[in-house]
Amino acid sequence: MRAPTYDILGIGNAIVDVVAPVDEAFLSRHAMHKGAMALIDAGTADRLYAAMPPASETSGGSAANTCAVAAMLGARVAYIGKVADDQLGQVFRHDIAAVGVHFPSLALQGGAPTARCLIMVTPDGQRTMNTYLGACVTLGTADIDAELVGDAAVTYLEGYLFDPPEAQAAFRAAADAAHQAGRKVALSLSDSFCVHRHRAAFRDLVDGHIDILFANEAEITALYETNSFAEAAAWARRDVGLAALTRSEAGSLIVAGGETVEVAAVAAPVIDTTGAGDAYAAGFLAGLTAGKPFVECGRLGSVAAAAVIGHYGARPQADLRRLAGL
Amino acid sequence: MRAPTYDILGIGNAIVDVVAPVDEAFLSRHAMHKGAMALIDAGTADRLYAAMPPASETSGGSAANTCAVAAMLGARVAYIGKVADDQLGQVFRHDIAAVGVHFPSLALQGGAPTARCLIMVTPDGQRTMNTYLGACVTLGTADIDAELVGDAAVTYLEGYLFDPPEAQAAFRAAADAAHQAGRKVALSLSDSFCVHRHRAAFRDLVDGHIDILFANEAEITALYETNSFAEAAAWARRDVGLAALTRSEAGSLIVAGGETVEVAAVAAPVIDTTGAGDAYAAGFLAGLTAGKPFVECGRLGSVAAAAVIGHYGARPQADLRRLAGL
Repeated sequence: MRAPTYDILGIGNAIVDVVAPVDEAFLSRHAMHKGAMALIDAGTADRLYAAMPPASETSGGSAANTCAVAAMLGARVAYIGKVADDQLGQVFRHDIAAVGVHFPSLALQGGAPTARCLIMVTPDGQRTMNTYLGACVTLGTADIDAELVGDAAVTYLEGYLFDPPEAQAAFRAAADAAHQAGRKVALSLSDSFCVHRHRAAFRDLVDGHIDILFANEAEITALYETNSFAEAAAWARRDVGLAALTRSEAGSLIVAGGETVEVAAVAAPVIDTTGAGDAYAAGFLAGLTAGKPFVECGRLGSVAAAAVIGHYGARPQADLRRLAGL
Repeated sequence: MRAPTYDILGIGNAIVDVVAPVDEAFLSRHAMHKGAMALIDAGTADRLYAAMPPASETSGGSAANTCAVAAMLGARVAYIGKVADDQLGQVFRHDIAAVGVHFPSLALQGGAPTARCLIMVTPDGQRTMNTYLGACVTLGTADIDAELVGDAAVTYLEGYLFDPPEAQAAFRAAADAAHQAGRKVALSLSDSFCVHRHRAAFRDLVDGHIDILFANEAEITALYETNSFAEAAAWARRDVGLAALTRSEAGSLIVAGGETVEVAAVAAPVIDTTGAGDAYAAGFLAGLTAGKPFVECGRLGSVAAAAVIGHYGARPQADLRRLAGL
């Protein structure tokens, strides 16, 4: 098997984040589940945006965030996702290319606009997300370049891909292509509500079709329908070769066969937790594909997560390689 | 004379900021004057954007920033400026309306896109700006609603309006309409390079056509072609009824006839100085139109400036009224 050109290929919903600070009452008034991601249609997106305070626009998308952060850490990264041929699509393309991520996906012409995620950040730093999928709903198997998939050590898929109807098929096509080429497949569970929406499909995937699993405590316990993190971790150990389970300020737990590694979080002031999980996966995969031991993979994940929670937006503003001591 | 509906009417170039951190070498490589604003064409904007690191998009525009901040402080504010009917224009309109600024200007249809200012922020917090004026070049006398001008206690004009060819006429029409209605006209000199480009016109305006002048040290000394701040301040005292002259961390000097008030800066960590002068003018005018003494106007200016320099972007992210003790 020849050496892959890319360490990581991310596939996900290509989204521009619209981030604004709100108070708790704003969430109640708009009937939002704090900390969760809800899907909204174009009309709801317009109405909600009109009610939002002044915002800033930054590139987002869960797997895209992971790709950007991994590239900032020195990994060789490619990304597949669907934007429209509009100003926000140009912003997304600029930002992911500017950190050195190869982004060959063509823009959607004349259809829905580039996806937007309206993100409300409460004073405790928690983010509550409302996503209008826009152009993302057209992502399908035709967008999966099997050659590109086969040329990446790890294909990283976000659970949110199970929301747009065509993307599930694209997800499975990518996973199959990766395995046929002898590569690894990683999955992030994305969000506990996303797990509830697609639990059966996720359970099927995790049981034998995924090599590396990322989840936080709420997601992994939702997947296995238990209140016990320890129990959920035991199930993950049985189902997948490698699982990295994050617990916010309590750090992360890595389980891989008989091996168990506990990793501390890196302390940081919390302004906006958007992208913390994505950044953790980035650090972890950048370390893993560089051949580092699990404890170092986890440390890189913790450093990357700390670098995104101290400001609004999901991607680091500082020199991440310096922060990581690389 | 009946009481005005608005405390402040701002008129300026309606711009979305594209903000990214860069190192000093980036400025040298692209032959930029650190701290200045340069005008660029569409092609240059595209090339420069392609060379920029990942950025975030936030609403900007000098007078628009002032309007937004003044509204956050409780002033009644309107704004005239030209955006296009595109996604960035919608972002601009959303953000200024969301803080309660009345923004009646119609969007430009089918012409140039909404203006963008590519802002490079160096590690010392200084910002270097490159503006593609886009739709702003169509702002003209037809956009000046004399009734709206007459209904505002102060019409606030940014010096940058002298750059697009039609806007100078709009500027003079607005100033005339304000004075005919018995209202005040305020001018910000905007940028020392802008002063150099339009010194004769500014000198003519300041000498009898402007009631309130805002400038920083570089701008006021450029206007009067002197190296001495004290000398420039003396000229300003002779030419205009009220001048508020800012000196970064050294605070500001207010000169008005025989009166002289020195105001301290409010200490704050410096991440990005974009919008500091705009915010100072906002605080000052919010105080002035509320009938506060100069020392309180200056204090509100200092508080507002401190609230924008601690993060990327030109507008406050915190509760400004609380910060100001209002």
